[in-house]
Amino acid sequence: MKKEVKKVVLAYSGGLDTSIILKWLQDEYNCEVVTFTADIGQGEEVEPAREKALKLGIKPENIFIEDLREEFVRDYVFPMFRANAIYEGEYLLGTSIARPLIAKRQIEIAKLTGADAVSHGATGKGNDQVRFELGYLALNPDITIIAPWREWDLNSREKLLKFAEAHGIPIEKHGKKSPYSMDANLLHISYEGGILEDPMNEPEEDMWRWTVSPENAPDKPEYITITYKNGDPVALNGKELTPAQMLTELNEYGKKHGIGRLDIVENRYVGMKSRGCYETPGGTIMLKAHRAIESITLDREEAHLKDELMPRYAKLIYNGFWFSPEREMLQAAIDKTQENVNGDVRLKLYKGNVIVVGRQSPNTLFNSEFCTFEEDSVYNQKDAEGFIRLNALRFIIEGHARKK
Amino acid sequence: MKKEVKKVVLAYSGGLDTSIILKWLQDEYNCEVVTFTADIGQGEEVEPAREKALKLGIKPENIFIEDLREEFVRDYVFPMFRANAIYEGEYLLGTSIARPLIAKRQIEIAKLTGADAVSHGATGKGNDQVRFELGYLALNPDITIIAPWREWDLNSREKLLKFAEAHGIPIEKHGKKSPYSMDANLLHISYEGGILEDPMNEPEEDMWRWTVSPENAPDKPEYITITYKNGDPVALNGKELTPAQMLTELNEYGKKHGIGRLDIVENRYVGMKSRGCYETPGGTIMLKAHRAIESITLDREEAHLKDELMPRYAKLIYNGFWFSPEREMLQAAIDKTQENVNGDVRLKLYKGNVIVVGRQSPNTLFNSEFCTFEEDSVYNQKDAEGFIRLNALRFIIEGHARKK
Amino acid sequence: MKKEVKKVVLAYSGGLDTSIILKWLQDEYNCEVVTFTADIGQGEEVEPAREKALKLGIKPENIFIEDLREEFVRDYVFPMFRANAIYEGEYLLGTSIARPLIAKRQIEIAKLTGADAVSHGATGKGNDQVRFELGYLALNPDITIIAPWREWDLNSREKLLKFAEAHGIPIEKHGKKSPYSMDANLLHISYEGGILEDPMNEPEEDMWRWTVSPENAPDKPEYITITYKNGDPVALNGKELTPAQMLTELNEYGKKHGIGRLDIVENRYVGMKSRGCYETPGGTIMLKAHRAIESITLDREEAHLKDELMPRYAKLIYNGFWFSPEREMLQAAIDKTQENVNGDVRLKLYKGNVIVVGRQSPNTLFNSEFCTFEEDSVYNQKDAEGFIRLNALRFIIEGHARKK
Amino acid sequence: MKKEVKKVVLAYSGGLDTSIILKWLQDEYNCEVVTFTADIGQGEEVEPAREKALKLGIKPENIFIEDLREEFVRDYVFPMFRANAIYEGEYLLGTSIARPLIAKRQIEIAKLTGADAVSHGATGKGNDQVRFELGYLALNPDITIIAPWREWDLNSREKLLKFAEAHGIPIEKHGKKSPYSMDANLLHISYEGGILEDPMNEPEEDMWRWTVSPENAPDKPEYITITYKNGDPVALNGKELTPAQMLTELNEYGKKHGIGRLDIVENRYVGMKSRGCYETPGGTIMLKAHRAIESITLDREEAHLKDELMPRYAKLIYNGFWFSPEREMLQAAIDKTQENVNGDVRLKLYKGNVIVVGRQSPNTLFNSEFCTFEEDSVYNQKDAEGFIRLNALRFIIEGHARKK
Repeated sequence: MKKEVKKVVLAYSGGLDTSIILKWLQDEYNCEVVTFTADIGQGEEVEPAREKALKLGIKPENIFIEDLREEFVRDYVFPMFRANAIYEGEYLLGTSIARPLIAKRQIEIAKLTGADAVSHGATGKGNDQVRFELGYLALNPDITIIAPWREWDLNSREKLLKFAEAHGIPIEKHGKKSPYSMDANLLHISYEGGILEDPMNEPEEDMWRWTVSPENAPDKPEYITITYKNGDPVALNGKELTPAQMLTELNEYGKKHGIGRLDIVENRYVGMKSRGCYETPGGTIMLKAHRAIESITLDREEAHLKDELMPRYAKLIYNGFWFSPEREMLQAAIDKTQENVNGDVRLKLYKGNVIVVGRQSPNTLFNSEFCTFEEDSVYNQKDAEGFIRLNALRFIIEGHARKK
Repeated sequence: MKKEVKKVVLAYSGGLDTSIILKWLQDEYNCEVVTFTADIGQGEEVEPAREKALKLGIKPENIFIEDLREEFVRDYVFPMFRANAIYEGEYLLGTSIARPLIAKRQIEIAKLTGADAVSHGATGKGNDQVRFELGYLALNPDITIIAPWREWDLNSREKLLKFAEAHGIPIEKHGKKSPYSMDANLLHISYEGGILEDPMNEPEEDMWRWTVSPENAPDKPEYITITYKNGDPVALNGKELTPAQMLTELNEYGKKHGIGRLDIVENRYVGMKSRGCYETPGGTIMLKAHRAIESITLDREEAHLKDELMPRYAKLIYNGFWFSPEREMLQAAIDKTQENVNGDVRLKLYKGNVIVVGRQSPNTLFNSEFCTFEEDSVYNQKDAEGFIRLNALRFIIEGHARKK
Repeated sequence: MKKEVKKVVLAYSGGLDTSIILKWLQDEYNCEVVTFTADIGQGEEVEPAREKALKLGIKPENIFIEDLREEFVRDYVFPMFRANAIYEGEYLLGTSIARPLIAKRQIEIAKLTGADAVSHGATGKGNDQVRFELGYLALNPDITIIAPWREWDLNSREKLLKFAEAHGIPIEKHGKKSPYSMDANLLHISYEGGILEDPMNEPEEDMWRWTVSPENAPDKPEYITITYKNGDPVALNGKELTPAQMLTELNEYGKKHGIGRLDIVENRYVGMKSRGCYETPGGTIMLKAHRAIESITLDREEAHLKDELMPRYAKLIYNGFWFSPEREMLQAAIDKTQENVNGDVRLKLYKGNVIVVGRQSPNTLFNSEFCTFEEDSVYNQKDAEGFIRLNALRFIIEGHARKK
Repeated sequence: MKKEVKKVVLAYSGGLDTSIILKWLQDEYNCEVVTFTADIGQGEEVEPAREKALKLGIKPENIFIEDLREEFVRDYVFPMFRANAIYEGEYLLGTSIARPLIAKRQIEIAKLTGADAVSHGATGKGNDQVRFELGYLALNPDITIIAPWREWDLNSREKLLKFAEAHGIPIEKHGKKSPYSMDANLLHISYEGGILEDPMNEPEEDMWRWTVSPENAPDKPEYITITYKNGDPVALNGKELTPAQMLTELNEYGKKHGIGRLDIVENRYVGMKSRGCYETPGGTIMLKAHRAIESITLDREEAHLKDELMPRYAKLIYNGFWFSPEREMLQAAIDKTQENVNGDVRLKLYKGNVIVVGRQSPNTLFNSEFCTFEEDSVYNQKDAEGFIRLNALRFIIEGHARKK
């Protein structure tokens, strides 16, 4: 039973797949299509999407092309890094964090253009469909969602190409097609499929597109200093940068030094395990640096509570629950801790390694006087006995009870 | 008010500090001293401690020298690594995990020798005093504890040396004394003090005793394969190894390839922040490998629950609560998950990097068929719509309620 | 696209709805039907289901009628009560905990009879469909599931009655039909629908079927004593009882004294809120008693950890994840703590109140000597100063840092 | 080694014990004493403390008597009830929540009067010393703390009376001295000691001072309606009330109907178990009502997250960490959820029972249409199949893997 749709906002990359979707939407739903193409740092020109959309019959006023890089880093990437978020101990959530922003802009554009539906190009077995659609529904519960990959029968490369040909969609040929399914934004690039489908296969060197290998990175280390304000990086080597500039520059350092490659098997929200390779050069540096500045500025127990809440926070983002009350609740807790997270972190970058070599802060809670074995102004060594005795009291009582 | 003590079991390294303690115990408490010296892989001969103890008047039958390396790795290190334990996002708990074993053997030897007290050489501002003493009291609530560093007034290097001289304790001179306070066992070596007291100072290269620097590590990567059984590593490159052999061998690989250096500011249980540098070569490899084998053999939700419980588990160990009901409770949960954690992990070691390049298991839950965008035997893409709709239902209802 | 089914095991109550399902399965799927009717303490005869099934054409060897009360209480209710499980602060999970057992037996009977499918009578908007089906699939991933309420178009009372009439299914008339949707087992009875659909309506007194109202309960309190062994109740007023006997007897006490009524709005797993009223007389007594015996036998930190894990454990059961690795992992942790949970709890029952008035245990950790303000054998009041100072040390350091 | 003190602010009740402390401070420390007496609803006149203090030689300008009831309820009790805080499943934290406020005012008065020390009358084995002193040090890291009960040797009733006599401190005789150690404020009254020291002893009826027994409560139920705004109660039966007025009125209802008695064995922070009896009449009503209004206004997952964080939040308050970064972090998360917690709860009070009989809200998320088994506007029953299948996918995959 087909849904009735008047106008649909499509997340449109300009590539073959979303061009096919565009056409398919026009045909299947007989509706007006609005295209939305965002620059979130994927490293490809977005402007060409306009020409393509026009050629496919989209009205000029229905073509939206936007540079969202600053918003992406400021309102999505940075808040997430305040939490030191890592999924399953390894993954920096590069794809996950970009979807909510796309979803949000689609819903806004739907409102702007009076569209009653949105559509995306995510497949039916992945996480991204969930992330897009949870975002859509959280922001507009009445929006109609069209997920072509779950509806159509174009579920093979051949059928897609045949459809493209039949509808005059240009199939660009740039040498050989990559064997990998990829996704990129300012935070990362990902790879799936191809030989990765056997988790015993090591990725081929030429798969990696952003970073040099550690082997090919410079033989000389490089030092950088990141300055933090309220938990966010604001200056690099003393130069103030906007959020997107910061991530862009850190990416350059990371790419150069072979930093941020990752090869994992992860658990998808829809239920299966999947192999993924990732490059997150700047993010890998930021995570290390943020932990370092927190290490001298956060209270111990708030740091530990952050660590305990983090896996759940990361899971929410991975699963697509960015626009949920529970994510906002956790964010409120996390942000509450970042007021004093100010200062500098000095890092050494070398062949895949990000090594913290210094940290300082106007709000530092570190004082070497308190650590040495000598007496100091705040610590009476005799106190340790009472501290230990009372912490052990339950053991003492239990020991006696058990003996009886 | 001095405690009455007849016989005390001292954790005795044979070094200057614990020799001074030995003498001081004899003088101050006028009691018999039993020395206990353990080989837990610290990399120093333990047998010389016998001669030293004899010279200080300890009776032969009161000298205990034991090789605890296998017990250490099997019953302490491995269970901890099953949990992927990391303190404050960075520290592999090398010192923390060794203390409970020492404490346990001291209590056992106290029972064996009829001693009514135990003593250790940990200072009054550190974590180790807590770890030793919580262990003692958990295992024998009636034991008397003597913590010389909190009692005596020998709280400077000069006073200690003067005491040693006055009592004929030999002060060995091996070139210049290290400026760092160090601790070592089969899992790690640690450094505190000296120039580290300023957290903006990068450690000097010659501080590190175990690993070569990444810069000086071989230019050629090396591949190894670790085999897991029930969550523990049991074979290396196909060769079966005992727990201590395994960690010893992995340490060699790590040291050679510049793996496992760490430089952090951490929060002590007694309340202050302290700078520490650590080398955990084999442990760093094991952590990465264990996560990799878990990635294909653990159920998603048990993996996530492990991740959420981990910071608390690591904190318990750091704080000295190994012998606590709550640690055992968490261990029961963790161990319950490891039954299927079997298989091989292939790793590439290169200049500080531990790179997972393959994993396989007879119990693997990974199946590439389920990940691709094509139909498969267990996954109906149409199911995703229902999955998403019902996960979003609360947002839909809340969206409507909020609009009103 | 209808699934091919040869033989299906139906959870059959003998009532109108599941009789209609029985017939519908025969017609729609043209398959053999096996009926499974369990006595889990719902308070109705199960034997009459045999006659009804025979009349509907079920072969005698395909009729399974079983008394599962002991298994239900021993292997499901008691383990859950060891955790003090409560969903959303109020609900004792009476329905949730019975579903996995039914599911398990259906799968076992399917194996026994060579059936390839199972079916249940739970509706398409409730939690029970999830609980049944997650259970089925956890125990047999290949089983075919038929959920008639989601498939057929008999979605109104009239259509059902018409179907019944058309197929000769007897419609018993016992006075007027209850306006409530109900479920019962040895642990509880539940009510939904009718006037409850307005959460401002107070339930009518005649809705409640098990308990008298507190107003109508005896004016004289009654005292009982429950004896615990390893966290489970084993004797009542000194008389040893099997698990099902225990719950049956406690139910009698609860019913008599107006104990265990509950009226809540809860969150269903499928996404909406729903109003439910419950009577859990014996369970309400057990929860209070179990907490009381734990209060003198559990270590503080294991008790606290149990409390922190409980909401998650309860949610797993509510959502239908009884047969999941994560529930088993939590159960392992919980059960680890119950070894010393032995002793007696004395309770006063009076007009809806369950009042703990005494508890004692051979393993008690309570000792009045340790609580008074006088000196005792294990506690030195001077220790408190050190305990407080070191717990406050981070505040002291932070206070100084902030002042600067 | 006695601390040097010029001026000390004493938490002064005007009773015998703190009068002895007052005198003892003057004698032992030879310092000026400032008395601080607060009305936090303990139910005793505070003004008489002025006369007593004057008689003991306190200068008029050093006597502070303040009514803190509104601040107490608004800034301490209400925020805590937003979290539904309960310690160890039972205790409503009546004593714990009052200590931070006293500590805060003492520190403020110390600043005002130029005092360099504070003192309290809490004993050396209880929780209150910790709560006071953590509060002091969190608010002024340099304050000197005098805890007479840990310092002096007046550790028996006889010694105290002898001291009082010797120093002309009037010992009022109001009939026989209560055998219980008590504490009261607007939220609760507590009892310890006496026959309670045997946890098998039922409290005597005449111990309870606030509430009638359920047996003696009215035979007729009474209905009340509480109106919530942003998670706090703001009106009772339609009448707007200030926070302290609200709690006062609810206390009256509770006392009349025998509501809020509690008899438990709890775990003290300093390590031992202790028996306590409590009356929290208004608080018991508020807890039930708050959960009820949340049940129709909170999103499911934020409600669940609150439930999971609650035990830790309650523990922080119990242990004295009100003024800690981690409590504030949790409070930020909790408060974030309360924006929509608005509406009315109707309750029936009867002989110890608080029964929720209705709840309504302008922000309600409950809609009966979504619960019934019929189709509705937001829920497609077919969606349930996909929802269940994908939630079960990991079981399906694991089932297959295990079979192999």
